[in-house]
Amino acid sequence: MEKVRIKDGFWSKYRELVRSEMIPYQWNVLNDRAGITIEKERTDGGSPSEKSHAIENLKIAAGRTKGEHYGWIFQDSDVYKWLEAVAYSLQEHPDPELQRIADETVDLIAEAQEEDGYLHTYIQLRCPDLKFKRLGEAHELYCAGHFFEAATAYHAVTGNEKVLDVAKKWADCLDRSFGPGRIEGTDGHEEVEIGLMKLYRSTGEKRYLDLARYFMDVRGSVMPFFKKQLEEDPHREFAWGIGNGDGRYLQADVAVTAQTVARGHAVRQVYLTTAMADLAAETGDQDYFEACRRLWEDVTKRQMYITGGIGSTANGEAFTSDYDLPLGTMYCETCASVGMVFWAKQMLRCESRSEYADVMERELYNGTISGMALDGKHFFYVNPLSVDPKKIKNDPLKTHVKPVRPSWLGCACCPPNLARMLTSLDQYIYTVKDGTILVDLFIGSEGEFKVSGSRIRIAQETDYPQAGLIRIRVEALEPEAETGDVRLGIRIPGFLSDDGVVTPDTKKAYTLTRGGTLVDTDPVNGYVYLQGPFRGEEIELSFEIRPELYVADPFAESMRGKAALMRGPVVYCLEEADNGKHLEALSVSGDTVFSYENEQGALGNIGVITAKGFRGRQQDDNGGLYRKIRSRSYKKEEVNLKWIPYYAWANRGEGEMTVFTNLE
Amino acid sequence: MEKVRIKDGFWSKYRELVRSEMIPYQWNVLNDRAGITIEKERTDGGSPSEKSHAIENLKIAAGRTKGEHYGWIFQDSDVYKWLEAVAYSLQEHPDPELQRIADETVDLIAEAQEEDGYLHTYIQLRCPDLKFKRLGEAHELYCAGHFFEAATAYHAVTGNEKVLDVAKKWADCLDRSFGPGRIEGTDGHEEVEIGLMKLYRSTGEKRYLDLARYFMDVRGSVMPFFKKQLEEDPHREFAWGIGNGDGRYLQADVAVTAQTVARGHAVRQVYLTTAMADLAAETGDQDYFEACRRLWEDVTKRQMYITGGIGSTANGEAFTSDYDLPLGTMYCETCASVGMVFWAKQMLRCESRSEYADVMERELYNGTISGMALDGKHFFYVNPLSVDPKKIKNDPLKTHVKPVRPSWLGCACCPPNLARMLTSLDQYIYTVKDGTILVDLFIGSEGEFKVSGSRIRIAQETDYPQAGLIRIRVEALEPEAETGDVRLGIRIPGFLSDDGVVTPDTKKAYTLTRGGTLVDTDPVNGYVYLQGPFRGEEIELSFEIRPELYVADPFAESMRGKAALMRGPVVYCLEEADNGKHLEALSVSGDTVFSYENEQGALGNIGVITAKGFRGRQQDDNGGLYRKIRSRSYKKEEVNLKWIPYYAWANRGEGEMTVFTNLE
Repeated sequence: MEKVRIKDGFWSKYRELVRSEMIPYQWNVLNDRAGITIEKERTDGGSPSEKSHAIENLKIAAGRTKGEHYGWIFQDSDVYKWLEAVAYSLQEHPDPELQRIADETVDLIAEAQEEDGYLHTYIQLRCPDLKFKRLGEAHELYCAGHFFEAATAYHAVTGNEKVLDVAKKWADCLDRSFGPGRIEGTDGHEEVEIGLMKLYRSTGEKRYLDLARYFMDVRGSVMPFFKKQLEEDPHREFAWGIGNGDGRYLQADVAVTAQTVARGHAVRQVYLTTAMADLAAETGDQDYFEACRRLWEDVTKRQMYITGGIGSTANGEAFTSDYDLPLGTMYCETCASVGMVFWAKQMLRCESRSEYADVMERELYNGTISGMALDGKHFFYVNPLSVDPKKIKNDPLKTHVKPVRPSWLGCACCPPNLARMLTSLDQYIYTVKDGTILVDLFIGSEGEFKVSGSRIRIAQETDYPQAGLIRIRVEALEPEAETGDVRLGIRIPGFLSDDGVVTPDTKKAYTLTRGGTLVDTDPVNGYVYLQGPFRGEEIELSFEIRPELYVADPFAESMRGKAALMRGPVVYCLEEADNGKHLEALSVSGDTVFSYENEQGALGNIGVITAKGFRGRQQDDNGGLYRKIRSRSYKKEEVNLKWIPYYAWANRGEGEMTVFTNLE
Repeated sequence: MEKVRIKDGFWSKYRELVRSEMIPYQWNVLNDRAGITIEKERTDGGSPSEKSHAIENLKIAAGRTKGEHYGWIFQDSDVYKWLEAVAYSLQEHPDPELQRIADETVDLIAEAQEEDGYLHTYIQLRCPDLKFKRLGEAHELYCAGHFFEAATAYHAVTGNEKVLDVAKKWADCLDRSFGPGRIEGTDGHEEVEIGLMKLYRSTGEKRYLDLARYFMDVRGSVMPFFKKQLEEDPHREFAWGIGNGDGRYLQADVAVTAQTVARGHAVRQVYLTTAMADLAAETGDQDYFEACRRLWEDVTKRQMYITGGIGSTANGEAFTSDYDLPLGTMYCETCASVGMVFWAKQMLRCESRSEYADVMERELYNGTISGMALDGKHFFYVNPLSVDPKKIKNDPLKTHVKPVRPSWLGCACCPPNLARMLTSLDQYIYTVKDGTILVDLFIGSEGEFKVSGSRIRIAQETDYPQAGLIRIRVEALEPEAETGDVRLGIRIPGFLSDDGVVTPDTKKAYTLTRGGTLVDTDPVNGYVYLQGPFRGEEIELSFEIRPELYVADPFAESMRGKAALMRGPVVYCLEEADNGKHLEALSVSGDTVFSYENEQGALGNIGVITAKGFRGRQQDDNGGLYRKIRSRSYKKEEVNLKWIPYYAWANRGEGEMTVFTNLE
């Protein structure tokens, strides 16, 4: 039993935006209703993006209408991710009309499913002879995974049995078809593993967990299989070459438990590790956990932008090398940051370490929600660290970076991913295990859990990240229940320490009281633990949240000599709208004094940061582009700089933006 | 009458390398002789690069052998550039055997030429119906231009009349075919204009100058013509899309005299401006000159790397935006730097301003010769400012950058371009006009010119750029000749001033004496003028050449917080071979003291620079990738750094390299 209701100054409006704007908006898109312009991305490469057609594809497969499949090979997943978001939304906000639409969509999906459980409209309608025969690129299991996630969520919230039946029938089809002696392969794009783990928890069927493990274990030796399938394919209509390389791109070059560095397509990588960590949490498998731990270290300490963004190159939306983090050409796909949230959550289930929650928080306040405009109706696929519209226009290698959010994307994976993450945010606040409740995120909410046999109620009240004051009350739901065995672990945010690592020394930066009495316990792996019994006494964590300049590791060449401004978990940025053109000429001193204030304006009510800085002046004489350092002939003038939260950028038209600013 | 013989400590060995290694080596390549591995570049995109086949193509066109054309559409130009280099080489170093081979090659070309003068083996052999019918991409006039350059040079040196006849016949064919009321178009790739200007000077035929001007003037309105030709083409075998855009890529979006910023393919741009400046110098046309001047300012003050490299993006080998100068993904094609030398020379003919010679010198000592290994047998197409082999390997967007020079290039434009530039270097030392000899470059040499009716001999003796001491003697060749009207302008190098601009104040940085007497004249546009008569008295310019750190304009984001080390005109760089891995972690202080010394080693005798610097240490604890600036938790250690000349990099195997170093 887990139930958490969010009532939060920061997040409630985002969740309401998803409910009131995004979900109906996406439904219109999925049904090709008028008035939505779909942006063709560079990555489309001539692929479909004129319309979604996703519901129509299902209708054709169901025999309700005639027509041809249109869209990406993974177009079905857009519907499933929408359905998953609807499920979470209905949990918080019952809506009979929306539920009716969703029920009908489930009916439609059930009708599109074949007798044996198979369900993938692209293959069904275009090339039914290729079922399970082009797994490297066909995304059949990828779509299945998204359907399993949607089905278990929708079933849990609404009790709709049909959706779970469709899922089980499809999963049973996979279980019959794949495994040693049957089809010894998996999908080129991970995701089915996540879905199967959820289906296992929803149904209790261990076969689904075993199948998830099989799909992971076969990965390291699947490349010859993909190549053979590609050679035998008479169609070649979706031969992108993905199944034909060394496998690095799809994490299939070595066994998943032997992987040490994150490489290849960023979303694939983090969907894999999400499932691996989930399996490790369920089974205690150390090999899986240790591989996840190694990859986590590699990603978060060597390949992650300060916004939480991952994927340094547009070519393949992929990881590149450790510390290779270019600021103007990166990818930082919204989906990849959403995937990091999923992964971090599973890591917390494995291990009580606050760094997982720190990263989750970094992703939530920055790299994920930057993917959505404040109106809930415009979306980024790529979340840049630096944008100059002029440079984008003049360099074809930067066309993947958009200076403003399009109203929809030809490859529409990101918006529904955001929607399902935001609507399920209540699942990320706490981790309950071994008699302990970990408070991972500071989000105003009320939750109920069963812990050590007792039903426990936990409430958080906070204006975080606006202010560093969190009030927590824990009590038994039944007055007579025993809570002496219950432990509460409260995360001490990494940003309270200079290097992100919480140590006993970090105690200087916060105050923790329980019923008015100071708690002096040392944090353990970033959590301070309080022992029950809890009787609703006020537990208060307080700390100052200051604007702070951050510098990157000296190995990260692109950020050398620059600093990014954060306030608590929120990354800030400079925009042309506030600071004029040529942001690259601005600089701040390392000991700059910053002011923070709330501002009501075009961006709604946001916290802005101002400070004195400098603007380097362009050569105003005949001098050259390069000058002797001792000449000091490049002048600068003092200017007032204004930063806004990164998540709020690109809501005032096209302009320059930068997260990192030059240091004087 | 112009004749300059080079005898120089720096350049003679390069010229000897071209003569003894490159020219025979290229001849082997052109004839597909064994033992040469041709590197397939990224830009090949499936295009030919297995072998050159260039001589064989001519043989087939001549009817000497049977076979099919192989290679790029501009493959013929490789032969012509080789022939041009041979011509210059024979001038300095007569070689009957080489001349016999070259004469035979001229015979072969003559045989390949058609009755009406047409000459382009690709079209002749593959699609003769497309003659002049796909000018946007066919490179017919481009190859013609290279042939005209080769023909005029070879004729001037050897007196071979046949080569000039072939050129005239081909040019006459063009003259008959193109112009108002005839074919109203030009080539997608500029070059014929340069060739026609040389043919005009060689033959005195003003028609060729007029035709060159026509090809330039028609450029701004040629795009509809290209598009129409493309639509009418039944083959489409070389439809790259170049003739189908807005024309910016090929400087055809607006009239050439109205262009204000350098855009599109870098080599095309500078070949165009070379011809425009040449025409302006010949005719005094101010519109042409002023357009060149604007474009020169734009390129050299906003789009040029410190090495002289141009072309910021690999996509199209092109210019991007002002101040957009990425250090790891740039293009900086060798040919483009060679083209800058050509352009600068023509600008000097138009206007006596030392900045043209400064840039020419920057290109000569850096961005051009970096394209060739010290063995004269390995070549770069791309000349990067920063290389990390690991990052190249892991990011497909960087595969155009090679960490070591391949032994030949599939698209082999660069090596022969270097060869012809080096062998004709004697033409770039002086500019003679209006009774004045400008000393543009400090290169040990002896020259003879006719100035103000007198035959003048000028000699330079110098160890430049090793040392800043240049001894010049000027005298009349006939003892009784009058040299009172002759002026000598000696360039004061821009690097003697902090911002590159020579002013009267720059006099503090040098000493100029004439016959032992101090000359105190103010420099005018960077030249100090001495008035005749000259009687062989020693004129001595001396200055100190110190290692100097240079910083870039504040608008140049990629170089912010970094500095490059130069000594005189020579750009230096750090290599892994001297400084270990992770060059990005190194830094120097702005007031570092540098030591310079000559070193005899794997790179021959070169001047190396050493200094104390720092190495930022990778996080050696559990801390994060981003840390608060006040924490100072990224440590650094003092290290000894060693820089070598940029032109000598990548001669000791694969490794990291960087021109810019972080500033402390």
